[in-house]
Amino acid sequence: MPSSNPRARHFPPPMSSTSLSPEGEEVAEEEQVVTPWEVSAKQGGKIDYGKLIDQFGCQRLDQSLIDRVQRLTNRPPHVFLRRGVFFAHRDFTDILDAYERGDKFYLYTGRGPSSEALHLGHLVPFMFTKYLQDAFKVPLVIQLTDDEKCMWKNLSVEESQRLARENAKDLIACGFDISRTFIFCDFDYVGGAFYKNMVRVAKCVTYNKVVGIFGFTGEDHIGKVSFPPVQAVPSFPSSFPHLFSGRENLRCLIPCAIDQDPYFRMTRDVAPRIGYSKPSLIESTFFPALQGETGKMSASDSNSAIYVTDTAKDIKNKINKYAFSGGQDTIEKQRKFGANLEVDIPIKYLEFFLDDDAELEQIRREYGAGHLLTGEVKKRVIEVLTELVERHRRARAAVTDEMVDAFMAVRPLPNMFS
Amino acid sequence: MPSSNPRARHFPPPMSSTSLSPEGEEVAEEEQVVTPWEVSAKQGGKIDYGKLIDQFGCQRLDQSLIDRVQRLTNRPPHVFLRRGVFFAHRDFTDILDAYERGDKFYLYTGRGPSSEALHLGHLVPFMFTKYLQDAFKVPLVIQLTDDEKCMWKNLSVEESQRLARENAKDLIACGFDISRTFIFCDFDYVGGAFYKNMVRVAKCVTYNKVVGIFGFTGEDHIGKVSFPPVQAVPSFPSSFPHLFSGRENLRCLIPCAIDQDPYFRMTRDVAPRIGYSKPSLIESTFFPALQGETGKMSASDSNSAIYVTDTAKDIKNKINKYAFSGGQDTIEKQRKFGANLEVDIPIKYLEFFLDDDAELEQIRREYGAGHLLTGEVKKRVIEVLTELVERHRRARAAVTDEMVDAFMAVRPLPNMFS
Repeated sequence: MPSSNPRARHFPPPMSSTSLSPEGEEVAEEEQVVTPWEVSAKQGGKIDYGKLIDQFGCQRLDQSLIDRVQRLTNRPPHVFLRRGVFFAHRDFTDILDAYERGDKFYLYTGRGPSSEALHLGHLVPFMFTKYLQDAFKVPLVIQLTDDEKCMWKNLSVEESQRLARENAKDLIACGFDISRTFIFCDFDYVGGAFYKNMVRVAKCVTYNKVVGIFGFTGEDHIGKVSFPPVQAVPSFPSSFPHLFSGRENLRCLIPCAIDQDPYFRMTRDVAPRIGYSKPSLIESTFFPALQGETGKMSASDSNSAIYVTDTAKDIKNKINKYAFSGGQDTIEKQRKFGANLEVDIPIKYLEFFLDDDAELEQIRREYGAGHLLTGEVKKRVIEVLTELVERHRRARAAVTDEMVDAFMAVRPLPNMFS
Repeated sequence: MPSSNPRARHFPPPMSSTSLSPEGEEVAEEEQVVTPWEVSAKQGGKIDYGKLIDQFGCQRLDQSLIDRVQRLTNRPPHVFLRRGVFFAHRDFTDILDAYERGDKFYLYTGRGPSSEALHLGHLVPFMFTKYLQDAFKVPLVIQLTDDEKCMWKNLSVEESQRLARENAKDLIACGFDISRTFIFCDFDYVGGAFYKNMVRVAKCVTYNKVVGIFGFTGEDHIGKVSFPPVQAVPSFPSSFPHLFSGRENLRCLIPCAIDQDPYFRMTRDVAPRIGYSKPSLIESTFFPALQGETGKMSASDSNSAIYVTDTAKDIKNKINKYAFSGGQDTIEKQRKFGANLEVDIPIKYLEFFLDDDAELEQIRREYGAGHLLTGEVKKRVIEVLTELVERHRRARAAVTDEMVDAFMAVRPLPNMFS
């Protein structure tokens, strides 16, 4: 996962630049590009997620599926399902069919630990994965790709490992059930059954194929070329004999942001050739930057995101100063025309993190009609995010090194499916 | 090691074919090619080892070095040194300089376990390595690249692992000292410190670079592209913390056939960039096939080699029937002109395996002068090889599964340097 946090990446696409032909004429708009390394919309626009579904060949996660999840789990669907944050899937229906017949599955997600502090977008897949784990009562493996970050970001092995452990604390703070969760770092865990599966996968993928999928060039180092099997094989239960020995047919469901789809297209292509089931996927949109969905995110610009380490004052300041508003310039115009909710970042953030459907609907309605001002909506976002970040901070502060060791211990999970 | 037995490969080059230009004219002779996958001499000729030294940029192993080895080890140099089987090196003098100052080193060699039965050529580097281990009293790591054979030969993981264990028995039969020897299979051992070093190496090598060194194409699978670091990292003591913890500056000496040089050119190029010492090399010629040094070896032709599983009758039959002779067609012509020793395979084999310098010299002299007939020389070769193979067979039969486990156990070697 080579972006700042690929599987958990929820930042907006950089704008694609318009190219000029040699004659100085503007050429046709570039197509949107979504890979684990690059997310760019058509010039000036937003990512067209419908088009992405067609382009990638995945399926839309429609209301009937959400209803089915609700029925099977006997609990309200997660806000990320209700609001279309997780909007696409591959064979999620197979998982539900099997579950309905009494067959369990396991969850696999991960993170490339390239930075010390996570931002809210990083939390999205983990918050959703925790919901899935609780709702379906299934085991979960979380891969921290310290090897990948060491290779892509030119970090030392030791620094990558340190970041992985720090990030593990943030994930544990999301509330995963230790009796059903195995967290591993590649530098610790690659080997044995896992390495055998890496070799099985690597044998089935030509260099031309990875160039087609990931766009590597000849000047890229061979560590990059070697990496896709590392992210592929947690999709196969036999990579975890201490968890799934005797359950090699267990199905795998991967919650991730849709930019990780290329890894798992490759994985699904290979799986039947080596006698394994294809993993299923449930895929999310990207989380927007404060500057708006068309703004270019900068990894070095801490003002483009709310971090889980931000203070209440930081959050207030960032939202008030940087959150792109769809409201009008003046109170008078706002009262008259209302806000453009489509581009309004406070509204987007509330859609992610305000659980109360009725309240959200009311805010949308009144803000869109001009009865609410931008400042009032921002005030509510600040409250919601401050509470979220404070809760995370308290939870993370309670995570000890011993707990990290316990989550990472190579051990059976005795009550995985109960 | 992707040939049938790359590091131990001692078979003659296939003849390079002469190409015809579109006009049907014969074009200039092809240059010799020596890589881990292809060994081909200039058309109709033998490998020009002097040229290879220039081409690869390694150094000739001259008499003064051999004398120095004798002096330092206080024992006669091995027949493979005396006869120029090991003929080239890289920085072997550094190893000897350090040894003279009282600094030890460790040996690293290996084998790609692609076939059940080894032939005599396969034994050459291991016989020599045993001599080095005994003479210098140093530890040894032997890598069995079951992962590589699984990838190159399309064997299953399980079959590759089985072959590796079978081959390990043949290596143990060469007499390595268990208190100084660690044998490992990649499928068992890759991980931890070893995998970290793989990543460190992979970061330093571009795809273009491995294409230049190994000639991969876009249709090769990424397992091949991923493999060179696996063969590189046993050159670094930190890949074996259970052996060399606290001795990360220990130097490494690699005995191998010269077709493995490309792997270690790459390794030596990378080593200083990741803070490690370059391994030194001591490199051998190829072992000739029965059909002669210009004959094309065929892996599927069991009549091109003497195997350690051959019976006395097999050996007698193969030598008499297939060993290419430099002797004359008739007794009369042989008495008159004598044999051409340069192309005579029985003489070559005696040069490898008849330890007695005086006897060899006498045979060469008398055979060359026509006083000895081909049949008489072949009789002596048959005796020598039968004894060698019988000795190996007895030693191998005594190797138990428990001994294999003991050599492969990840454990300290308490008396490594004594």
